[in-house]
Amino acid sequence: MKQFTQQLSKFDPITGVVEGAPPAIERRLSDLKGVFADELAYEAALAEEDSLVYSTYCVAPEQGDGAMLYCIGKFMPGRIGAEYYMTKGHIHARPETAEFYFGLRGQGVMLLEDEASGDSQLLPLLPNGAIYVPRHTAHRTMNTGEVPLTYLSVVLADAGHDYEVIAARGNFRKVVVDLDGQPTMLDRAGFLESLSR
Amino acid sequence: MKQFTQQLSKFDPITGVVEGAPPAIERRLSDLKGVFADELAYEAALAEEDSLVYSTYCVAPEQGDGAMLYCIGKFMPGRIGAEYYMTKGHIHARPETAEFYFGLRGQGVMLLEDEASGDSQLLPLLPNGAIYVPRHTAHRTMNTGEVPLTYLSVVLADAGHDYEVIAARGNFRKVVVDLDGQPTMLDRAGFLESLSR
Repeated sequence: MKQFTQQLSKFDPITGVVEGAPPAIERRLSDLKGVFADELAYEAALAEEDSLVYSTYCVAPEQGDGAMLYCIGKFMPGRIGAEYYMTKGHIHARPETAEFYFGLRGQGVMLLEDEASGDSQLLPLLPNGAIYVPRHTAHRTMNTGEVPLTYLSVVLADAGHDYEVIAARGNFRKVVVDLDGQPTMLDRAGFLESLSR
Repeated sequence: MKQFTQQLSKFDPITGVVEGAPPAIERRLSDLKGVFADELAYEAALAEEDSLVYSTYCVAPEQGDGAMLYCIGKFMPGRIGAEYYMTKGHIHARPETAEFYFGLRGQGVMLLEDEASGDSQLLPLLPNGAIYVPRHTAHRTMNTGEVPLTYLSVVLADAGHDYEVIAARGNFRKVVVDLDGQPTMLDRAGFLESLSR
């Protein structure tokens, strides 16, 4: 039988590690330029320390039509001004591919933005909670809690990541901020205006 | 944005239920005729009670190329002779689709059989453990423990189930039995011979 060394994987929801997986992709604050609406708060935080924001271990046992890959994400808790630590956010390079997320530990949210309509949705990412990211949907993950957030994701192996589509139009249409302790979705323009006051 | 009522789901690893999902598929002993090698033990167990063996709640938020569906499976503990309670087992109707499994609670194993070579592999299905079922691979799940086994599965929405390919050649090439408390993979012919002694 085709032997896949990564066919069987042990996830650690505390450390956010998949045993035997290739090294994680790590994103630090310096990798996230342009992601946070509050640029002053971002520059101040970066000047203090280029903190680790998230890491992802991915396992891709095979390639080809119908092959899948899966990852464990570990997301540090943190804030940049009123915004939560967040991913760059992406759509899939092959945009007609969905993605499945499943919370293991901690508290987070996902911001979804439909590519056709621009409509946005904010969903909780919690232990034993699943989020289905529909096809043609940009998505961004945030840790809204005080401990590391770990989660599982499953996607087609050839889905790919496209960061340029979002970068080209500036950013996601909505920002998510901590408002009285609650993750709250706001229009970007309104939030930027509130910052400049 | 396209609103999917099932986009956000809460899994219960104890009850094996997805809140708000459509009713589960249930398989009782009477649905599993021909699955167990030990037919006498099967008929005796069925005569006593048509027990529930497993149930599956599945959520399919959308259809089309690249769409996914996800399920929670709940597997009761039990034995038929030396064999564990097991699924019918299937390959995908679209055989070039992989499947991802993730253990939530309890102890199980999966038997994988490569369609091309017939080679078999037995993998543990444990909490926080992932199993990648490669494309073109028949697979069967068993509860090897003493409590319900619950697990998550993710697959392409159009993967489908094909039970006929396996039924047509009789069954999986290997049987899995409890040998001194350990799940052990044996050749079917040898096991059948041992039963007739």
